[in-house]
Amino acid sequence: MILKIPTEEFRQRQKEFIKRFQNQGSDCAIIFSVTDIFYLTGFHFHATERPMGLIVDPSEKYHLFVPSLEHEHAEQYSVIDEVHSYPEYPGLRHPMEYFKDVLKEYNFENKNIGYDSIGYGSPNGYRGPSVDTLITANSFISISTIIEEMRFIKSDNEIELIKESCRWGNLAHKLLQKYTEAGKEEIEVTNRASIDATMAMTQTLGPGYKPHGKTAYAIYRGQIGAESAFPHAVTQNAVFKTGDTLVTGAAADVFGYHSELERVMFVGEYNNDQEKYFKYMYDAQEVAFNAIKPGEKYSSVEEAVQKYYKETGITHLTKHHTGHNIGLLGHEAPFFDLGDDTIMEPGMVVTVEPGIYVKGLGGFRHSDTVLITETGMEMLTYYPRDIDSLIC
Amino acid sequence: MILKIPTEEFRQRQKEFIKRFQNQGSDCAIIFSVTDIFYLTGFHFHATERPMGLIVDPSEKYHLFVPSLEHEHAEQYSVIDEVHSYPEYPGLRHPMEYFKDVLKEYNFENKNIGYDSIGYGSPNGYRGPSVDTLITANSFISISTIIEEMRFIKSDNEIELIKESCRWGNLAHKLLQKYTEAGKEEIEVTNRASIDATMAMTQTLGPGYKPHGKTAYAIYRGQIGAESAFPHAVTQNAVFKTGDTLVTGAAADVFGYHSELERVMFVGEYNNDQEKYFKYMYDAQEVAFNAIKPGEKYSSVEEAVQKYYKETGITHLTKHHTGHNIGLLGHEAPFFDLGDDTIMEPGMVVTVEPGIYVKGLGGFRHSDTVLITETGMEMLTYYPRDIDSLIC
Repeated sequence: MILKIPTEEFRQRQKEFIKRFQNQGSDCAIIFSVTDIFYLTGFHFHATERPMGLIVDPSEKYHLFVPSLEHEHAEQYSVIDEVHSYPEYPGLRHPMEYFKDVLKEYNFENKNIGYDSIGYGSPNGYRGPSVDTLITANSFISISTIIEEMRFIKSDNEIELIKESCRWGNLAHKLLQKYTEAGKEEIEVTNRASIDATMAMTQTLGPGYKPHGKTAYAIYRGQIGAESAFPHAVTQNAVFKTGDTLVTGAAADVFGYHSELERVMFVGEYNNDQEKYFKYMYDAQEVAFNAIKPGEKYSSVEEAVQKYYKETGITHLTKHHTGHNIGLLGHEAPFFDLGDDTIMEPGMVVTVEPGIYVKGLGGFRHSDTVLITETGMEMLTYYPRDIDSLIC
Repeated sequence: MILKIPTEEFRQRQKEFIKRFQNQGSDCAIIFSVTDIFYLTGFHFHATERPMGLIVDPSEKYHLFVPSLEHEHAEQYSVIDEVHSYPEYPGLRHPMEYFKDVLKEYNFENKNIGYDSIGYGSPNGYRGPSVDTLITANSFISISTIIEEMRFIKSDNEIELIKESCRWGNLAHKLLQKYTEAGKEEIEVTNRASIDATMAMTQTLGPGYKPHGKTAYAIYRGQIGAESAFPHAVTQNAVFKTGDTLVTGAAADVFGYHSELERVMFVGEYNNDQEKYFKYMYDAQEVAFNAIKPGEKYSSVEEAVQKYYKETGITHLTKHHTGHNIGLLGHEAPFFDLGDDTIMEPGMVVTVEPGIYVKGLGGFRHSDTVLITETGMEMLTYYPRDIDSLIC
């Protein structure tokens, strides 16, 4: 059972990143993306007003730059050569002045400096200078897409972590379906399903399990009854009624890795209209599954699904593309979208979730997490998809 | 009982924002900050790869720009004059091309355009042009701090929502303390405390309660035993042992408004060292409370606390400033920090949380949420602070 990414794999990622930014003409790099820093070092932290960054110096050493309150944490829990810290933000001396010291000490001056964003950014009251005002470079080179693209293709370990995530999302979903009934409240049902699945998960996985995100959960996000016609509705604290159309979401984060399992369900019974739209959605998902082939473009899946919508006369009931990659973030590029010409490759993990939204009746969307393979795809989520398995 | 911000207050905020950006020389404005869009319109959404924005046109009308899947949701749940949408991201035509159409239609061309950030930003695989490439302006004026500063001082309604948040954080914390004991697992205890408090909360508040965030919760974030010496440790799935130092966190979001309640607790018993550091922390918090006075600088509170640390000889055990504003975000500016010269004003809501961290023994930090008043401060959190009330 794999519950974390091994140190060796972080080191491989670090080597690969250096190779790629050097190929783009950079001598060194500055990274502020929280997700990319975790991907390269395993350092998981709460981004706040206090700036943090990862730098790779011209001698290929990795350094974390953190507030002093994270210094020991960074040393103990990350795969890193050096940790540097500053007292506090805003402080009497701005953290970016300390950052400048580090850049100078490690010979960033007059180099070709790759960067992902030109300064630290946070909504939590942070203000500060961009890095191009801190140091004189030969050039500043945007390398914001390198790590994102490394993350496109999952390693065997990453796929195992995502499968572990699917397993506990499946249990949480099973309990959600079991606990949901007319007259019950959304918040009670989703909380009970989530905690019971989480307890089973932690008992099974033991202390080696680090969520680095959410433990097992199953929710409705307010997609209950007519409200389910809002694709990303937020929790509305609803009470279930017989005949409600429901759209679920269930998963568990495992060492930061996500999966996505969503189902349309019905409270007690479904009527002819609900059955009709359910079938359109079901068939659209089948169309997508069949279109997933390595070597083809992501857009080809969306084209196939949109062709089906058009032939069936339901294009006006659709509101979004068919899916997105998933991994350390819930939504990642590339997308099953008409405008995304990325080529599908083995190791990519994608959601398949065509949706149909009927005002007054509800939303109809299953989402499954699938792995693109050498020959087609493998389902990583495995919850029943047929209508008669989805009555609460 | 107030469970939401009334429409009229959103309209007042909108008027005030217009007044302020006009005073800074802007004719119109473009806002991408999720939090600021919620503050001005009440539109609560999940930011993804799909760009969203709020614009105020030169005739002072407010427009939301959203993906089509959010169009009806935006119309139904926000205080807004117009909603515009685009099919999908990335799409065959980039969303920012549709955004350009809206800007042109509503006469942004050749105007003085205020903006908070120069383009939509998201880690979820979004790529797109900055707004200054979309349209010809007379000038682009950074107005990124206006709404943040409007949010510094809370209205009576906002204070009521924060008090409601404190109430349920307090209950969650009570249950956390009750359920914690040697041999129990962190994840079980925190989940049970959180769900039981959430159920009491939703039964009490009824369907009018919209969290727009998290329902009631009480957690340890891994700050258990020696690990509690990491100020922002992440969940580690620990098992409690007699004598562990614990640092908690409890709250509930109410219509998006946060509060913060944190306590040091001990499992079963405390020793002399734990008592000593607890007392230092307790006294440091008292020093801070006494230093909070309208008309003084935020930095003066930090100076008083640091003076106390120095006199007591514990400066080397401290790692962060004493507090931060709180409201729609968990951390907001200004800060109780040596480098923050903002003046304290009645209506500001701040955390008071000096922390002492002793390697091998644990962290010592209470956090209380307080309101700055005409004469000093009012405690909004009300959990016991003394050591003998904090044994599990």
